[in-house]
Amino acid sequence: MRRAWLAIAILPLAAHSASSADAPAVKPRAMADVIAASKSTDWRSLDPQNTLYLELPQGRVVIELNPKFAPRHVANIKTLVHERYFDGLAIVRAQDNFVVQWNDPDNKRPLGSAQKTLDAEFSRTANELAFTPLPDPDSYAAEVGFVDAFPAAREPRTHLAWLVHCYAMVGVGRDDDVDSGNGTELYVVIGQAPRQLDRNVALVGRVVAGMEELSALKRGTGALGFYEKPEERTPIRSVRLAAEVPEAERSHLEIMRTDTQTFADLVESQRNRREEWYKVPAGRIELCNVPLIVRPRT
Amino acid sequence: MRRAWLAIAILPLAAHSASSADAPAVKPRAMADVIAASKSTDWRSLDPQNTLYLELPQGRVVIELNPKFAPRHVANIKTLVHERYFDGLAIVRAQDNFVVQWNDPDNKRPLGSAQKTLDAEFSRTANELAFTPLPDPDSYAAEVGFVDAFPAAREPRTHLAWLVHCYAMVGVGRDDDVDSGNGTELYVVIGQAPRQLDRNVALVGRVVAGMEELSALKRGTGALGFYEKPEERTPIRSVRLAAEVPEAERSHLEIMRTDTQTFADLVESQRNRREEWYKVPAGRIELCNVPLIVRPRT
Repeated sequence: MRRAWLAIAILPLAAHSASSADAPAVKPRAMADVIAASKSTDWRSLDPQNTLYLELPQGRVVIELNPKFAPRHVANIKTLVHERYFDGLAIVRAQDNFVVQWNDPDNKRPLGSAQKTLDAEFSRTANELAFTPLPDPDSYAAEVGFVDAFPAAREPRTHLAWLVHCYAMVGVGRDDDVDSGNGTELYVVIGQAPRQLDRNVALVGRVVAGMEELSALKRGTGALGFYEKPEERTPIRSVRLAAEVPEAERSHLEIMRTDTQTFADLVESQRNRREEWYKVPAGRIELCNVPLIVRPRT
Repeated sequence: MRRAWLAIAILPLAAHSASSADAPAVKPRAMADVIAASKSTDWRSLDPQNTLYLELPQGRVVIELNPKFAPRHVANIKTLVHERYFDGLAIVRAQDNFVVQWNDPDNKRPLGSAQKTLDAEFSRTANELAFTPLPDPDSYAAEVGFVDAFPAAREPRTHLAWLVHCYAMVGVGRDDDVDSGNGTELYVVIGQAPRQLDRNVALVGRVVAGMEELSALKRGTGALGFYEKPEERTPIRSVRLAAEVPEAERSHLEIMRTDTQTFADLVESQRNRREEWYKVPAGRIELCNVPLIVRPRT
């Protein structure tokens, strides 16, 4: 009986709105009801040209790339993938409450057609970028919200925007030099959003399925969570661009769009929970607590 | 070479202070330097009367209880532990980016001397509670900071204070009724801080060592991350109060105090990183990104 706690209520709950005066008009509903009432236009399919499949022995991890913020880095990663750079490499690091990371542990695999260094792409101009803001304050940025369902921030003073280090975001490891990241070493956030990394590193995408194959990896016992013994590493069978995988072998997923009334309703359902279990609604939400909503393509 | 990224610099770095005008005076240093320069009075030992050892097949998890916020719940848990209620039970749930949880999966173990229901202890009066505030805004609460090195929040308007759901915090599962939690079912946060739970549930402590034994557990594939098969559960060998364990078998740990100048310096080292890798200092910090600093007793 006690194990029912935190269940998402399925029944619609009649309740008064507790949204702030500044927020868009929303219907007070539980998240499950908002999703159930969504229309097909509230969703978008993953673009096979910007979707990677990281194949591990335990299963597939699906990564959606976002070329709007770090186009050079995304292009270089796609070149590396196309030339099968990652096949046979390994997950070399799992640092608790921080990141998992993969690379060439011997650091001698040739780069092929890929660039060895890339100019920094840690932020970009916010102009002409459709941005859905959240209504609540953020500890780190003047404004936070979503661009194409990716968590992002922007600064009105500098007109800059950047992707944000939420859970499951994928970034490009680099050395101290800002141009030293080239996409051969990628990391995924597995803990509390390490927002101090924002604007210091190129974020290129995020995991949309299979996250639990990464987050539950045994933590490395070496410095920074690196595995001390090669046999502790998880081998990477392959990394493929979805567009280069036969249609029948693709993961057909849809992401809930963030530029819709349905998404505004969903955010409100999380700011003020309607489920019976909750007694004190938060009345607020932090960017990285807004769930990414993914479903099989219908 | 690239794998050096995010390393904590050990060398002291000469740099100007970037602290805000409102923050206490702090010395701009990297975290490692702040810790290295700390004095014995900057630390406190764990109290054996408020420390639990959760013994799993893979190792020990050390939990520090805080009786200031939920004294009835802490007392009931200590009664359950003293009477060996948890021995032989199991971790029954691991929901990705949320919580792991343990209980009596058969729900038939007798409660012994423990109470079956407890009045809610989700917040308390902030009066007479030594509170070290953080200088930066929070998405959820008017003010956040630390009480005895536990992350906490307080509301000047209502004079209430409560513990906050950061990574590794330990709470008491309950059913829909606010008095239905009694400590027989406990959960630990393993992902992005689920702050919507704040003030809705009794937080009783947090994991101070062995967190990786919980966070890396295979996720459950049932609803809400419950394991579908009994053999997927992790058995609990025992839960013991440190005071009831022979001195030689105890984990002797110290926690960095949060009511000191050293801690103010540490917070500043995380608000504005001094390590060479960082190019854009955040200038801010979110409560749950302030690290808990633990060391073996010296």
